[in-house]
Amino acid sequence: MDHERIVILAHEKFPDGAKTALGVMRYGDQEVRAVLDRDTAGDRVHDHVPDVDDAPIAGTFADAYEAADGEVDALYIGIAPIGGGFEESWRDDVRDAIEAGCDVVSGLHYFLNEDEDLASLADEHGVTLRDVREPHDDLTVATGSSGDVDADVVLTVGTDCSVGKMTASLEIVDAARERGIDAAFVPTGQTGIMIAGWGNPIDRVISDFTAGAVEEMILELGDEHDLLVVEGQGSIVHPAYSAVTCGILHGAMADGLVLCHAAGRDAINGYESFPLPSLSAYVDLYEDLSAPVHEAEIVAGALNTKDIADDGAAADTVAEYGEAVGVPAADPVRDGAGAIADAIAETVMNR
Amino acid sequence: MDHERIVILAHEKFPDGAKTALGVMRYGDQEVRAVLDRDTAGDRVHDHVPDVDDAPIAGTFADAYEAADGEVDALYIGIAPIGGGFEESWRDDVRDAIEAGCDVVSGLHYFLNEDEDLASLADEHGVTLRDVREPHDDLTVATGSSGDVDADVVLTVGTDCSVGKMTASLEIVDAARERGIDAAFVPTGQTGIMIAGWGNPIDRVISDFTAGAVEEMILELGDEHDLLVVEGQGSIVHPAYSAVTCGILHGAMADGLVLCHAAGRDAINGYESFPLPSLSAYVDLYEDLSAPVHEAEIVAGALNTKDIADDGAAADTVAEYGEAVGVPAADPVRDGAGAIADAIAETVMNR
Repeated sequence: MDHERIVILAHEKFPDGAKTALGVMRYGDQEVRAVLDRDTAGDRVHDHVPDVDDAPIAGTFADAYEAADGEVDALYIGIAPIGGGFEESWRDDVRDAIEAGCDVVSGLHYFLNEDEDLASLADEHGVTLRDVREPHDDLTVATGSSGDVDADVVLTVGTDCSVGKMTASLEIVDAARERGIDAAFVPTGQTGIMIAGWGNPIDRVISDFTAGAVEEMILELGDEHDLLVVEGQGSIVHPAYSAVTCGILHGAMADGLVLCHAAGRDAINGYESFPLPSLSAYVDLYEDLSAPVHEAEIVAGALNTKDIADDGAAADTVAEYGEAVGVPAADPVRDGAGAIADAIAETVMNR
Repeated sequence: MDHERIVILAHEKFPDGAKTALGVMRYGDQEVRAVLDRDTAGDRVHDHVPDVDDAPIAGTFADAYEAADGEVDALYIGIAPIGGGFEESWRDDVRDAIEAGCDVVSGLHYFLNEDEDLASLADEHGVTLRDVREPHDDLTVATGSSGDVDADVVLTVGTDCSVGKMTASLEIVDAARERGIDAAFVPTGQTGIMIAGWGNPIDRVISDFTAGAVEEMILELGDEHDLLVVEGQGSIVHPAYSAVTCGILHGAMADGLVLCHAAGRDAINGYESFPLPSLSAYVDLYEDLSAPVHEAEIVAGALNTKDIADDGAAADTVAEYGEAVGVPAADPVRDGAGAIADAIAETVMNR
């Protein structure tokens, strides 16, 4: 998956309902030549999102292709309807992209490769349909060797789902690179995979291979960089998803952990009868559960303050969070992850 | 899967290499009409294993079928070669069973349903090939409701793989029933599923559904019994399999845990560079990790002493184990699980 120039489909959802599109625009290396959104066609990206590269917004793939002078390698599906299905209203755009010789990259539950119409059209035009949620066939059990790589490894862990672990991971990589550290992002979910252009969708792997699928990625990159930042998933006390979290924790064998939390969150999202335990309980749990496999301490905190409007109040909340966890903390979106990268450099990397 | 009279295939492996066959013979409700082993054909089961129901050992399915007067509902594959493949030398027996109208039940990695020859023959004869390692299609994420069932729930947890969690679970169910408790076994692995005749193979479920696949079983049985004993898998600090363990822990929402260990084990089996943490560390980890989702204490211990020849020495080791864990303990094979069932009745069930 090595696409230099892409179009991102975000019909009727750009920008606020297009998390994947925004993630790719903000953190991906790909050049976004156009966004597809029939509701805002004719606008520019900067009319809605000022802090990413600008691009036209088109109503159809045909229009986007023309606006990009035909310089498009791939169409990315940048939105995910509830349920992860494929919207039939996208079919013409996807077909037009295939017929224009573009790959199509999708993080939907619905696999494009299992859609006979699209699969045969792709075959005919010699392009690839890449379903990033579909694990590859060669995954197997972990061998226990992630701890042997040259790179230092940091993992973002969370108090819950949807607290900003992917964003924190990507911001940490950016901040580390600004500090001259050769850092790389290790994606574990579909948006991260679309941004990075590679990776294993850990939540779709069979449970026996959870740690192994992370280990495979650590071994692949571990001797080529100084720092790997692994995108965590879920929470170790999530009633539904803790298996994924635990497999990533032991598969990554991180040297340091960054505890991610969303300000104001006090119960598991969507499982409101389960209150979050205290921050110190999370610190103990993550560290105590890591230790028998690979010693790891919480070395920094990332707090998502998007629900706090006032900058001063947000800064106070971040400071309180850092004190409660006992480590340097930042909101990676509001502040950048410089303070977190510094903490990683000083502790895990011992610089 | 409701087979009253079965033949078990254990070619060249009965009894010592036929763990699944022995498990079904010892704990299953099925009547074993014959064992297939071409190496010991002509012997009786009691020549090799005195403490299960006797049966003839036959060299072929045809001989076994004749010895059983044709009263056979199914052929169970009772052995698992390294790698989980299908041995071509079994094909004639499996074909003969299908042609005789028998279902075939297999815990192999190799799915009989994907073998065109066997699948079409089964179709022709109207019998079912049941691959117990293949999860059913309707699994989904946990809803967090396992804690709401009427039954008390106990889960066997371990210091490692292969310490006797399945056997302990089955012996606990037997001992509880002897004490007048309406107890049921909840299987999570292929041998347990073949014994019980139902269940989800948790290690083959996609990782997002790990807890959900356990919850489905708890909800199915939870209002029909007073006690559910859930078969645990792996260990919470296993470098490869901890995801499965964690998903079962939070999916089962057990009220009590039974810590299973093998005497003399001091490193992870097959991962010898990872020493086991202390028993008290396991107690803390399992309890602390359970608590935010559902409070559970370690209420008893099960120690596997098969490597200790002397009964007195074994009893001493069990006593030491119980003291170290701080709970009543037994070797369920050597002593039966009476002491464990009593501890469960007194603590979890509050009798």
